[in-house]
This record gives sequence, structure tokens and C-alpha cells, in this order.
Amino acid sequence: MIVTLAGGVGAARFLEGLVQIVPPATITAIVNTGDDFQLHGLYIAPDLDIVTCTLAGVIDATQGWGIAGDTTACLEWLGRLGGPTWFRLGDRDLALHIQRTAWLRTGVTLSQVADRFCRALGVTVKIMPMSDQTVPTHIITTAGEFHFEEYFVQRQATDEVLGVRFVGSEQAHPASGVLEAIAAAEVILLAPSNPVVSIGPILALPGLRTALHATSAPIVAVSPIVGGAPLKGPAAPLMRAVGWEVSAVGVAHAYRDFLNVLVIDQVDAALKPAIEALGIGVVVTDTIMRSSAAKAQLAQAALTAARAIGSVSASLA
Amino acid sequence: MIVTLAGGVGAARFLEGLVQIVPPATITAIVNTGDDFQLHGLYIAPDLDIVTCTLAGVIDATQGWGIAGDTTACLEWLGRLGGPTWFRLGDRDLALHIQRTAWLRTGVTLSQVADRFCRALGVTVKIMPMSDQTVPTHIITTAGEFHFEEYFVQRQATDEVLGVRFVGSEQAHPASGVLEAIAAAEVILLAPSNPVVSIGPILALPGLRTALHATSAPIVAVSPIVGGAPLKGPAAPLMRAVGWEVSAVGVAHAYRDFLNVLVIDQVDAALKPAIEALGIGVVVTDTIMRSSAAKAQLAQAALTAARAIGSVSASLA
Repeated sequence: MIVTLAGGVGAARFLEGLVQIVPPATITAIVNTGDDFQLHGLYIAPDLDIVTCTLAGVIDATQGWGIAGDTTACLEWLGRLGGPTWFRLGDRDLALHIQRTAWLRTGVTLSQVADRFCRALGVTVKIMPMSDQTVPTHIITTAGEFHFEEYFVQRQATDEVLGVRFVGSEQAHPASGVLEAIAAAEVILLAPSNPVVSIGPILALPGLRTALHATSAPIVAVSPIVGGAPLKGPAAPLMRAVGWEVSAVGVAHAYRDFLNVLVIDQVDAALKPAIEALGIGVVVTDTIMRSSAAKAQLAQAALTAARAIGSVSASLA
Repeated sequence: MIVTLAGGVGAARFLEGLVQIVPPATITAIVNTGDDFQLHGLYIAPDLDIVTCTLAGVIDATQGWGIAGDTTACLEWLGRLGGPTWFRLGDRDLALHIQRTAWLRTGVTLSQVADRFCRALGVTVKIMPMSDQTVPTHIITTAGEFHFEEYFVQRQATDEVLGVRFVGSEQAHPASGVLEAIAAAEVILLAPSNPVVSIGPILALPGLRTALHATSAPIVAVSPIVGGAPLKGPAAPLMRAVGWEVSAVGVAHAYRDFLNVLVIDQVDAALKPAIEALGIGVVVTDTIMRSSAAKAQLAQAALTAARAIGSVSASLA
């Protein structure tokens, strides 16, 4: 069994690679829910939907989120009625938020909703929210404290970031099955997702880091920072705010207490010694997922690195 | 001030006539909410939306409900995710349900939602839900008891009807301002709506009939039954089930305790004596609202009948 800690677009593309090289049903994706929020009275789960819809083959591949061919008739009318329109919700997309909200209101858990969506959309990767509780990621800025989506989408990441807060994280539990999946995993992969606001909220949950320390499974991460910048999203100011260098070294630093290997891009090959100095192995490869083949190649590189450690461990035993 | 008791499509078209002949801001429509129900976790108010969207000029005029030019992308995806699809909800239409539900969940009343929708859509007729409480209309059939929309839309009115129940009506209150509007009205009009499930739920609210008995304003109804059948909807089995003849006489019977004049269609001219025998005046005219002019003509006929009584009362005073 392969467990992947996942954020949004980068993770979804990485998982698209992984399902090409191992049976999808052997993969468990533990997905960040720190971005989840309510808008129009609906429960919106950006990363869960990105991962699910990508694996279902219905994602808008160009933007990486939203459903292919979607329209915005409902959103236009929500605006006309006085509702907020800063978060672009397509008509098809809204069906996920409406159905999820309806189920949650009847006592169905977010994990169960994820299962139902996977079944409905033909996704056999096991997708788990990191928690069934609400753990919103807040960005503390010089202009005030905002939910991540407010900071990132509504305010377009223009505020100066002072820090990040995972609200309620200390009192929350990982969703049922999350710690068990980590304990049972043969390989643990950290997708190329924002280490602060995508992987960070997962790691902040009680028991998560302990489970990663306890496992004997190899743990391999793919750096989302290439050539000193993220491929997508607001990682740079967020990493800086929490004191990490905006580089593959910074990523290695974020995971140094449990990571075995970091997969970095060829443009960052010179950073290898600095990462190895943290006691973390390095694999250098092409990490830009421009094509389906590139996704599979990256997933293969991560898996090969993990299996190399696994066999070393096995031979030592 | 003119108060109109209103159901859905017939009432909306009648109001379209009324706004052509009197200033819209002098009209208050008290609208049935017995058809309101929850689906997909959303609060749906069919009659309020039909009346509001008709007066806003955005209704799908062919079907009489829904928004012109609407699409169903969201509904198709709701179905794909396992949600019910028997109630046709357009993408634009859904915006009303989403926004209403969001506001209701924050403590805004249905009356306030109606006001906000009117403002947003440029409707100056005062639209009031009959109650801010939930008073669902149930249809008792040989196959079981169903919410009106389940009976009418989901089960296509195929069940044998035994009776009608306004659940919670006795404990409910008319919305704030409803009884006051009736008390202050110069004219009270009952739109050509189903007397059992459109006007019936309004009349069943505590204090409503008393207010109609107490007013000195003329009360004029337009018969929705023409030539022994309703122009639209399931009035026939419902009227029969509650013991009323499916005719303009049956309509007169339903309102006999407070009605001054019933406007009936020319095809029903022969029923005039039977209605007058109930102590109710009769105006015979063309009641089929095929055109904008026909709507205005019908509204004018009702208003003229009311003013005739009003001036009689005035001259007697």
C-alpha cells in the first residue's frame, strides 16, 4: 500500500502519474482540508475536489481545478442576488458543494462524502480527508488574519504574510483510518505540494508526525519548489514567513524530522549536498509534469527511490 | 393598497396584469409557502420564486416557472453524484435556492429573503411569504402521505387523493405584516390559483380568515377553474378530495364565508345563478391570460368589480 500526503493541483498531477505505474486501489491519498471553507452556505473542499476530479478525468486540465467544460450561470445569478462572486464556482462544480453540504448536514462525515464521490466518479484510489473536523488554515498578514482562500483568491495573495495558523488543529483528530493507513503503508510519498499550507496542515494534526516517525516505511517527498520558486501558488511568501528558504533545501528542512529522500529537479542539482547535509537522500530528475508520461516518470522516480530504501532496510533486517 | 393572495403561475400572470393598471408599489402579494420544501439541502420556495421572477421579467414564460434561458449543468452533476433529479432545478434557478438557504441559515427570515430578492431583481410589488414558519402541504393518497411537490412533480399526481393536510398550520403565524396588510387593504384580490393547495394554505393560517371577515375592503376572487377544469395543475382531484365541485361554483363555495365577487370565465356564464345563490356577486369575462393585454384586462375586471362594491359601501356609509 502506498500512502500519499496531498494538497491540490501538484498532488493531483503527481497521483495521475502514480496510478499509471501501480494499481490505483493500492494508493491512499490523505488530502489537506485546511483550505476548506463555507461560501454561499456551502461546504467547499478545494483540495479534495481537485484530487478527486483529476483522478476521475473530469478536471479542467488547463487551470488544474474546476470541472472541464463548466459554465458559471449559477454564480452569475448568485452575484445578481447579492452573494459573493470572488471564488469562481462552476455549475457542475457546485453540484459537488451542494451534495457534500447536504450530506454533511445529515451527519455523513467528510470521509464518507469522499468515498461516495469516488464511487460516483469511478475513482478507485482511496481518497481520505486529513480530518473530518474543520481545521481552517489562516494566513496572518499585516492587513489582518484571513482564511487561506480569502488571502489567496479573494485578496490575490497581495498581503504581506507574517505567519500561518491551523485553527483548531491541536484539538482535531486525523480522520478515521489516516493514522492506520500510515502505519500500514509500505511506502509514504509526499506529493509536490505547498509545504506550508498543503502538507503543513496534515503534519500539524495530533499523531501525524508521530506516525511518520514510527513507521519503518520509506518516506519520499517531491519538492514543489523548482529553481527557487513554486510552479504554482503562493508558497514563496508563506515559506519565508515560517522561516524556510524558498528552495528545495527549505522543503527538506520542513520535512527533515522524518524524510528519507527528497526528489528535486535537475535545475536544483547543486542543492544536493545541502540537502544531504540534513541527513536526507536526494534524487535528481525532471520534476515538471508537462505530460502524462512526465507524471508517470516522476511518480516512478519517487517510488524507485522509496523501494531502494525499502530493500536496504530489508537487507539490514 | 391592493392585497393579492397568490399561488404560483396563475397568480404571477394575474399580477403581471395588475402591475399594468396600478402602480406596482401599491400592490402586496401574500404568497403561498405550503409548496416549499428542502431538496439537496436547499430551501426551495416554488411560488415565491414564480411570483418574484415573473414580476422581474426573468421567468421562463413558456413553462411559467424557472428562469428564462436556464441550463441544468448542476442538476445533471447532482444526479451523477447520487442526488435526486426529479425536481428540475436550473443553474440560474439554483442561485435563488442557494442564496435563500444561506441567508435562512444565518437567521434571516423568509420575508427578508423575499424583500432582498425583490430589491436585487427590481421588483417593486411587495412580496410577502404567507408565513416565515414551515407549513408544508401534504397530500394524503391511497399510496401514502406525500409533500405536495412529491405528489405533484415526483409522482406526477397519479395517486388517488384522499385529503390534504397543512402540517403545522395551526401552530404557525402569518408572517409579520400579513394581517396588517389585509387590515389596511383597500381591495383584496384572490388570484386565479388552486383554492386547495395555493390559496388554501394561506387561509388556513391562524387569524387569516378572521382578518378577511373583519375587513371592510371588497374581496374579489378570480376563478382558476374554467369550463370545469383548471387551466394548469392538479386542482381537479384535490378539489374533489376536499368535497368541492370542480367548477367556478366549487371555487365560490371555498371562499363563500368572505368573498364579495367571483370573476368567472364566459364559458361558465351559466353558473352565475348558482354562485349568486351563495350570496356572492359574479362578473363574467374572459379569464384566459393569453397575452399581456389579456392579463391587464382580467386584472382590470377584478379591480373594477372591487371598486364597484367599494363605492357602494362608501355611498351606504
